[in-house]
Amino acid sequence: MELLKQKILEQGVVVSDQVLLLDAILNEQVDPELTMEMGRAFAAIFKEEGITRVVTVESSGIAVAFATAYELGVPLVFARRKKTLLADPDSYVERVPSFTKGIVTDLVLSRKFLNAEDRVLFVDDIIANGDAAKGMIKIIERSGASLSGVGIVMEKCFQQGAKSLREQGIRVESLAKIASLEGGTVKFAE
Amino acid sequence: MELLKQKILEQGVVVSDQVLLLDAILNEQVDPELTMEMGRAFAAIFKEEGITRVVTVESSGIAVAFATAYELGVPLVFARRKKTLLADPDSYVERVPSFTKGIVTDLVLSRKFLNAEDRVLFVDDIIANGDAAKGMIKIIERSGASLSGVGIVMEKCFQQGAKSLREQGIRVESLAKIASLEGGTVKFAE
Repeated sequence: MELLKQKILEQGVVVSDQVLLLDAILNEQVDPELTMEMGRAFAAIFKEEGITRVVTVESSGIAVAFATAYELGVPLVFARRKKTLLADPDSYVERVPSFTKGIVTDLVLSRKFLNAEDRVLFVDDIIANGDAAKGMIKIIERSGASLSGVGIVMEKCFQQGAKSLREQGIRVESLAKIASLEGGTVKFAE
Repeated sequence: MELLKQKILEQGVVVSDQVLLLDAILNEQVDPELTMEMGRAFAAIFKEEGITRVVTVESSGIAVAFATAYELGVPLVFARRKKTLLADPDSYVERVPSFTKGIVTDLVLSRKFLNAEDRVLFVDDIIANGDAAKGMIKIIERSGASLSGVGIVMEKCFQQGAKSLREQGIRVESLAKIASLEGGTVKFAE
């Protein structure tokens, strides 16, 4: 997606060879027009899949997953990273490490909002090692729903998350693929 | 907003005299069409205010604040409830109690995304005691920006948050006002 690549070059900050900070467009400040474009792109990519629910994890994935769900005309469901006092006790829980937070958290999703008839698109902002994605995929499997695919805004190709999902036969579509951040420079794949 | 009231009656769950669970439409599952309607409603209410940024707090406020920012054509900025390893060290931090989480958390917002020229609309899903709102208003004040108003999806009139903000002269507009949840029944104000 050319607009996204352009915004990444303009506003992304290379923090290290591993970390590209997109807080100006994605993780803290959100560009609504760009985000709706990303939602339209995911909806177009997965439009033949009969998606019934878009799933994400709080918080950075919510805006783009919302835009995708809006374009597909289906509900968005987001997992929380830990239980609140109001959470449904009958929830799916998967423990996952977080690359950016440097801690282990629980992904929590109410059983009410996923069921065996669902065809699910998982959308997230960034995939690095894929721990959050793998946790969500386990939750989707446990619900009996089928995973139709994974939509990622920015894939870091030099980390193993997306590759390892594709090796499991999962369709992963990324709007921008980063080949390298070495020397403080963003290099896109392809 | 009639559509919202109807959805609250259909899908809200009264947990106690104090708590109405809207996880089916707002807090865990999000109804995108309803949410875009809410965004359009806030944009219409505040359209004369020259808003330059919409601000919210993760996570339940993000979808409706995004819809509002999209309709107004301005960026969305969301505060996080605690620091991640990637957070800008130069951030505003306000410590607030959380009614639903039963704990104290830090609201964290990068200084990069609010400045003295901004006219800010704060949007959130629910106002009860108003602790998150008060914390965000302090952050907005510290940035030098001006607060144009507060948009709330569901105001619980029997708790003091919205009332206390209005007493400070802040414009608070709520799309649904709950007068009471007694006896397990949702009663709207007005």
